[in-house]
Amino acid sequence: MSQPHRSSLPIPDVVIADEFWSPRRETVRAETLPHQEERLRDGGQFAALRFEWRPDPHDDRERFPIFWESDVAKWIEAAGYALASRPDPGLEAAVDEAIALLAGAQQDDGYLNAYFTAIKPGKRFTDLRDAHELYCAGHLIEAAVAHFQATGKTSLLDVVRRYADLIDREFGPGGSCEGGYCGHQEIELALVKLFRATGERRYLDLSLRLLDNRGKAPFYFDEEARERGDAGYFGGQGSVVRADRRSREYNQSHAPVREQTEAVGHSVRAMYQYAAMADLALELGDQGLREACERLWRDLVGTKLYVTGGIGADPSIEGFGPAFHLPDGDGYAETCAAIGLVFWAHRMMLLTGEATYADVLERALYNGVLSGVSADGTAYFYGNPLASDGTVERSDWFDCACCPPNLARLLTSLEEYVYVADDAGLAVNLYVSGTARFTREGRHASVTQRSAYPWDGAVALTVGGEAPLAFALRLRIPEWTTGEPAIAVNGEPASFAVERGYAVLDRTWAPGDRVDLVLPMAPVLVRADPRVAAAHGKVALQKGPIVHCVEEVDNAAPVPHLVIARDGEPAVEHRDGLDRITVAGAVDAPAAGGLYRTGTTALRPTEVRTVPYFAWANRGKGTMAVWVREAP
Amino acid sequence: MSQPHRSSLPIPDVVIADEFWSPRRETVRAETLPHQEERLRDGGQFAALRFEWRPDPHDDRERFPIFWESDVAKWIEAAGYALASRPDPGLEAAVDEAIALLAGAQQDDGYLNAYFTAIKPGKRFTDLRDAHELYCAGHLIEAAVAHFQATGKTSLLDVVRRYADLIDREFGPGGSCEGGYCGHQEIELALVKLFRATGERRYLDLSLRLLDNRGKAPFYFDEEARERGDAGYFGGQGSVVRADRRSREYNQSHAPVREQTEAVGHSVRAMYQYAAMADLALELGDQGLREACERLWRDLVGTKLYVTGGIGADPSIEGFGPAFHLPDGDGYAETCAAIGLVFWAHRMMLLTGEATYADVLERALYNGVLSGVSADGTAYFYGNPLASDGTVERSDWFDCACCPPNLARLLTSLEEYVYVADDAGLAVNLYVSGTARFTREGRHASVTQRSAYPWDGAVALTVGGEAPLAFALRLRIPEWTTGEPAIAVNGEPASFAVERGYAVLDRTWAPGDRVDLVLPMAPVLVRADPRVAAAHGKVALQKGPIVHCVEEVDNAAPVPHLVIARDGEPAVEHRDGLDRITVAGAVDAPAAGGLYRTGTTALRPTEVRTVPYFAWANRGKGTMAVWVREAP
Repeated sequence: MSQPHRSSLPIPDVVIADEFWSPRRETVRAETLPHQEERLRDGGQFAALRFEWRPDPHDDRERFPIFWESDVAKWIEAAGYALASRPDPGLEAAVDEAIALLAGAQQDDGYLNAYFTAIKPGKRFTDLRDAHELYCAGHLIEAAVAHFQATGKTSLLDVVRRYADLIDREFGPGGSCEGGYCGHQEIELALVKLFRATGERRYLDLSLRLLDNRGKAPFYFDEEARERGDAGYFGGQGSVVRADRRSREYNQSHAPVREQTEAVGHSVRAMYQYAAMADLALELGDQGLREACERLWRDLVGTKLYVTGGIGADPSIEGFGPAFHLPDGDGYAETCAAIGLVFWAHRMMLLTGEATYADVLERALYNGVLSGVSADGTAYFYGNPLASDGTVERSDWFDCACCPPNLARLLTSLEEYVYVADDAGLAVNLYVSGTARFTREGRHASVTQRSAYPWDGAVALTVGGEAPLAFALRLRIPEWTTGEPAIAVNGEPASFAVERGYAVLDRTWAPGDRVDLVLPMAPVLVRADPRVAAAHGKVALQKGPIVHCVEEVDNAAPVPHLVIARDGEPAVEHRDGLDRITVAGAVDAPAAGGLYRTGTTALRPTEVRTVPYFAWANRGKGTMAVWVREAP
Repeated sequence: MSQPHRSSLPIPDVVIADEFWSPRRETVRAETLPHQEERLRDGGQFAALRFEWRPDPHDDRERFPIFWESDVAKWIEAAGYALASRPDPGLEAAVDEAIALLAGAQQDDGYLNAYFTAIKPGKRFTDLRDAHELYCAGHLIEAAVAHFQATGKTSLLDVVRRYADLIDREFGPGGSCEGGYCGHQEIELALVKLFRATGERRYLDLSLRLLDNRGKAPFYFDEEARERGDAGYFGGQGSVVRADRRSREYNQSHAPVREQTEAVGHSVRAMYQYAAMADLALELGDQGLREACERLWRDLVGTKLYVTGGIGADPSIEGFGPAFHLPDGDGYAETCAAIGLVFWAHRMMLLTGEATYADVLERALYNGVLSGVSADGTAYFYGNPLASDGTVERSDWFDCACCPPNLARLLTSLEEYVYVADDAGLAVNLYVSGTARFTREGRHASVTQRSAYPWDGAVALTVGGEAPLAFALRLRIPEWTTGEPAIAVNGEPASFAVERGYAVLDRTWAPGDRVDLVLPMAPVLVRADPRVAAAHGKVALQKGPIVHCVEEVDNAAPVPHLVIARDGEPAVEHRDGLDRITVAGAVDAPAAGGLYRTGTTALRPTEVRTVPYFAWANRGKGTMAVWVREAP
């Protein structure tokens, strides 16, 4: 079959000028990136690259510097995207310093991992299951590609190409790691980016090889453990070989990737793997990988997706629980996993052209991703539970600091997710004000969006360019739309077909043509499938893409005591830059007679007030819930 | 203040002849005890006492024989109680064999622990936090007292007295473990039994010393860890000293026991500690211990008690979560913890004379304890969750086999919990058919109960004896009573006062006098305090002391899809020896549109049918829940 030709517009061709996103992205540039740079300096990540890191003699825990390149790399990647949209000499100098440290830490043969070089010399690539070497390499590659595309500099790209070439030798036929793959997927999708940036086909081949090695018997991780003779970096005092199904599912090595049917195990690893599978399915037209992706997607979205777009409910494995196991207060929903879902959903949309993937991307982005960072840009959630007993708050940093720079790199590269160009024209996937520039039949054209999204579903689009141009403009009709969408072209109501979730306007556009899209966006009560125990007898409030929650600070009682009236009509007020929903409800006071009581409940009427879930925990500690009881 | 003189009647003075309990106790004798003996032989517990146990060379996990004396001891204890009520030469011979093994494993100086003797010689009493030596010793003592009282034989009592004397020296002033105590409480309550059996006051003093050492700074467990220099049996690769509050709370060594205010940590350890505190408060009239017990009780019963009487919601510590954290499907509620609650509640009732403790004892016994064993007596729950996704079933045995013999010893010693004798007369705490014999003013008397409890609240009691005798007969009025209780004496309605939860009938009783008590026992819907998230919008069904659950096998749909009608009137049918409750309800089918949906719910009317919670999981796998949604 012929390949689809869908792709994101290059970041420089998309300008974001959006009331919702621009201030948040400016906060990332001005606050988050400097804050993270400081934490990386204080935390030892930079010192480790100078081989100057030493364990704290007063701390008898062993510290874990094995992921540290990935923290630095994600920060460089985020800075790269930020530099692409706005010059910042101070930031660029800090990036150059970090790149120089990485270059200095690289060994003569291209190997680059400070932990193994300084602390475990001679042990490289002997603990692929636990030690995250290729994971770190993958993040270095992503950073290098972003930095190169933003600045034109090859300083980091040259470094990672030498490392990637070493990896290609070691993991290729006759190499020391032939048949191997990393316990934490990441390099697979990074190598696709490196292929696209360099045109070197062998990076694509290496990516496919690493994916297809995974989960094949005899299991590489068992073999390497036997050869190594110890239980590995995370092995504790357990068995050398962890051959049980749960241990294999943890890193998705339980079965060949093409045969996997359910989203299992550590959810970030899963997302990065599935994203790479979608990339390769697109690049190679590989139908087996595509079908596996579609199966895994149906399983995840049908049984394991939080209403916030969070995934990975089980804290004990940072990963997926069984189907419909979506606990609220005890759930996990790691920020990185929601980000990984954005990555995968984006690639599935490119692969299939179906808007349903962008629906899920939007759900994750505006809720379970954005909740991961505070309004001021300097505090983070690792897990994003859907309820709090009052003890949950964002942290300044984490020992394992994967989430903060992951958030930064996603928000600074938001341009990638707004538009898709294909043979027929341009699709608008996200309603983000700003301009897309693209070329068609050799001529420059543009589409400019204006809206108060996500608070209002009215979007105005204006076509610009050199001359009239025929192309299909496709506008995503989101799943949350609460009535029939309407479109006017140059003020006249237009009829349109909806194909694969997009309203299609295929015509010859003249410069200045204006399209007005109205997506009805009423607040609604959402209920979950009855198999989601945490949502039993409860509702969530949602308006447009924004899932709301109830915070104690806005309400008459701690959240567990609030109930929402059955005939309550939600009303919306926009205040301090956020929608608030108010709905009739009541306070259900604790029983006087102890934990359990018979008889009916006495309810005191009140109004129940919400804020967007992403904005919670910015006003001190207190109870919170997304799922709120309906009144008896 | 003067001491109360409340005590259980001795086991031989209570005969149980009860339609509910007698067949279950016969199952323990005829099925459970032989099954457990076989598992102890197969599992290596007997071999370990012959120092013949070897790790399996094909199993590269280290196996844990450190608790094994306790498994054997609890089995001997259970067998001792069984022998007290019915001779069984085969069982007695097996017990004698086990005792001979224990005697053979005892060292010249009295020490008795096969793990340390065989595998860690020279290391005894160096890892009190983790290694369970005194815990095992405590169970040996309890077994010895039960065996002595059942058979009159001192074969095991002599062994444990020598061991207790060694412990008294080592943990006494100037001993090698002065200031120490065990990480798993148990010996403290066992030493009270040994004191009562032998009259030796120093066992009581040792018990008090071990309790009062606990939680005092400098922390003994920190000191021993520093001296030992490794992280201990369960320490893994962590810190040598575990000085954080959560680690200390785990074994209740975070504060002196008299200053503890909340039930925290591993729940079995907590129950055994609190039971010993209540024992000592009773024996010594120690007001500080009593007040601590009452505080801890209020915290547990007010915030951490499952409706089934289960406790210890957090599987990660086999113990207590925060207040109101009582998840259903993800909860823990270890069988041993509910048994420990029976022990503590019983002692609190003896200490205070308040029926409320027996109410909780009854709730635990008929629900969260009895659920721990299958109808056929040979399969066990370790945890007793209040909901199942269909994967939960009882196991034949466990690597850590604490629960099965704990169940056996409680059910074979049920006599202890039925009656309490005090200066004024006799209190009936549990309605269990059979006869209590007691002596008053030098004369023999008896009280015989007959009822169809727990299925019916009508109880007939007949006084027997040699001659008229004045005493107060106190009948517990359970908290679950659904109307005014009625009492008739010799067919005539009698007025009565209720004092501390007991109906008091204080008069001169003639042989043949008959008392008829009627406790109204209608089925009721129970709701939880709003702070219990797992019960939000849900009800449980209860009749009398029996908490019911809904099992898939009896119903029209998997349990998560069932809802109970708001105006549903529960009806009861008694079938195959069990009550079943039927109530109007509906099936809430899964949404066609995926996990989340807006709009109202389509309900298909059905009847929702229950079984007693204790009887669930005897008919194959399927979904189950105690808390069931109320219809929207």
